[in-house]
Amino acid sequence: MAEESPESFKVTPWAVEGKVDYERLRVLFGTSDLDEPLRERLRGLLGSPLHPLLERGIYFSHRDLPRVLTEYEKGNPFFLYSGRGPSGDLHLGHLLPFELCAYLQRRLNVDMWIQITDDEKFLFKRDLPLEESRRLGFENLADILAPGFDPKRTHVLFDTIAIRTLYPLALEVARRVTFSTARAVFGFTNENNIGSIFYTALQSAPAFLPSKQAGRPVPCLIPCGIDQDPHFRVTRDVAEPLGYPKPALLHNELLPSLLGEGKMSSSTDATDSAIFLTDKPEQVRRKVSKAFTGGRTTVEEQRRLGAVPEVCSVWSLWRSRFAPDPKEFAEITRTCRSGELLCGECKSRLVPRITKFLEEHHTAREKAKEWIQGTLVDGS
Amino acid sequence: MAEESPESFKVTPWAVEGKVDYERLRVLFGTSDLDEPLRERLRGLLGSPLHPLLERGIYFSHRDLPRVLTEYEKGNPFFLYSGRGPSGDLHLGHLLPFELCAYLQRRLNVDMWIQITDDEKFLFKRDLPLEESRRLGFENLADILAPGFDPKRTHVLFDTIAIRTLYPLALEVARRVTFSTARAVFGFTNENNIGSIFYTALQSAPAFLPSKQAGRPVPCLIPCGIDQDPHFRVTRDVAEPLGYPKPALLHNELLPSLLGEGKMSSSTDATDSAIFLTDKPEQVRRKVSKAFTGGRTTVEEQRRLGAVPEVCSVWSLWRSRFAPDPKEFAEITRTCRSGELLCGECKSRLVPRITKFLEEHHTAREKAKEWIQGTLVDGS
Repeated sequence: MAEESPESFKVTPWAVEGKVDYERLRVLFGTSDLDEPLRERLRGLLGSPLHPLLERGIYFSHRDLPRVLTEYEKGNPFFLYSGRGPSGDLHLGHLLPFELCAYLQRRLNVDMWIQITDDEKFLFKRDLPLEESRRLGFENLADILAPGFDPKRTHVLFDTIAIRTLYPLALEVARRVTFSTARAVFGFTNENNIGSIFYTALQSAPAFLPSKQAGRPVPCLIPCGIDQDPHFRVTRDVAEPLGYPKPALLHNELLPSLLGEGKMSSSTDATDSAIFLTDKPEQVRRKVSKAFTGGRTTVEEQRRLGAVPEVCSVWSLWRSRFAPDPKEFAEITRTCRSGELLCGECKSRLVPRITKFLEEHHTAREKAKEWIQGTLVDGS
Repeated sequence: MAEESPESFKVTPWAVEGKVDYERLRVLFGTSDLDEPLRERLRGLLGSPLHPLLERGIYFSHRDLPRVLTEYEKGNPFFLYSGRGPSGDLHLGHLLPFELCAYLQRRLNVDMWIQITDDEKFLFKRDLPLEESRRLGFENLADILAPGFDPKRTHVLFDTIAIRTLYPLALEVARRVTFSTARAVFGFTNENNIGSIFYTALQSAPAFLPSKQAGRPVPCLIPCGIDQDPHFRVTRDVAEPLGYPKPALLHNELLPSLLGEGKMSSSTDATDSAIFLTDKPEQVRRKVSKAFTGGRTTVEEQRRLGAVPEVCSVWSLWRSRFAPDPKEFAEITRTCRSGELLCGECKSRLVPRITKFLEEHHTAREKAKEWIQGTLVDGS
């Protein structure tokens, strides 16, 4: 993927550059709008209000969501599938799909499949040893499981561990995808290594695995960052020729960088762009206090004109998970816009929320470690 | 690989076309001559005379053979590695590397690693189901084990079964091989599927596995048809950067077609080109009786001028395995050349030898089936 809009942002599974215009990206990618009628349908199924990630449009785009909802209503439940390429530390943005999945699993009692792509990270990083990618994968997995999955309904495909289960499906996919296609979708060149070219077949495999195991079409719903859409375009293209149902997708916006441009990033030269799940209270305080906001240059001006929440990295945190109460969130937004709430006060209120969340998350991830082993496909 | 000599033959891992000039091919591929001084060194190690495949130059080329022999003499034995992409039926030509390996194992008491590439065949054949590729793999494996391997020293890497062991090594290889390189070596185009492009990494993995398992460099010797050399050129190129010893190679000529052009082939439109291991006595008789020879157009002419064994597909069978006694082979060759032995008589003598061999082979392959399971890596 190397589609560029006139606004010159760039979104691929491996890099996001510039200020992303999500509505424009949705049009470029050709996905559907997660609009109010569809949210209303979701409320009927999940209860009202929806999870903030759905209610507030952070999940803003989809492919074929109505189809899997109809199947669900007919008594043919979908399974959820999302995944992660291991990295040093997860930040809040990485957690979004898993928070949504845990919520959907709790509400609908559906299965969750998580892929940990230690092979992917190995192939795309020249100097990462495979053992280190695996170790990071297990660390990340504890974070991923922390949002409250049901151990009995959660299955983890750790690529180098579950490869015997995944490989036959990856072969089916790979036989259907030419280098031309992979190059067009991912922007590969002749200098990409042959493992990175093949890898997308591995990321398709989990979408088909439950159907293969059940011997009948099992619908699949994939919540993921919009940057991962190219992989699943390949998955969707090959699904029907292979006799599997096309997976549906739910796309989230990427949490904006605290530094004011692009998205939260875990690259080492931009650690202040993101709140990491391992950040200490002091780090949280420091990062939030210098975070980019939608405020004005002077207090006087802000009182008079109000601030702009839509461009504010602090507001995006309230929006995503730190003001789950709709009334509180509405009040924050209103007073921000009116100039009543100044950025300093807003930030002071947010910091303890984040700190508390990270504390609880830490407890939950340590608890999750106790049942990780049981979720691993082929893990015994 | 798409190297063409002025004589316009073509040798790749997937197709051999035209009349192969092996000496020219050796020069094109840049391999070393398996010459008389090297054979003499082998006699010192293996006993004299050597196996006909070595003694008579059917193994005609190598890479780095002296190095592994020196290591062996210093008390650091190599292991043997060869493999097979499953197909409907094996013919006599397919068996050559395994006959050589079984002989080397008996003489030197070394380990044998056999790879069955059910994934490869699946990826390169549009309509072959994976289950069928697997089934064929097990059938072929019984044939491969029949030449008399030591069950305790023989390890089978059946790709889709042993993938968890192979995959991490394949990833190491794949990260080092660009699409450019794969294209140059194998002649890939943009229309090749991404699995076929990745596959060579799987074929490299067994060459490094014993070193990885032992945690020290274990020398590797790969006997194979010269058409497989491109794969192992990739293997050799990445070996040292990855910290593994470069495997040595031993290349055999391909048994010539009984129809007089190209090599024995298992493609369905050329079944008369080869003696298959499943051929019935009547089929053997028929194929040999119409086989292309080096004889003259009339008996009178042949008595006067003699025949030309070097171009004769029947002589190549005597040479490879049906006249193990050097005296008998010399006598056949001499009387052929002198015109004393006519083609009809020569063929009549050969037929019962082949029939007897196939009978014994059939018994041996059924016996081998009893211990296949124990050889499978990750097979339990």
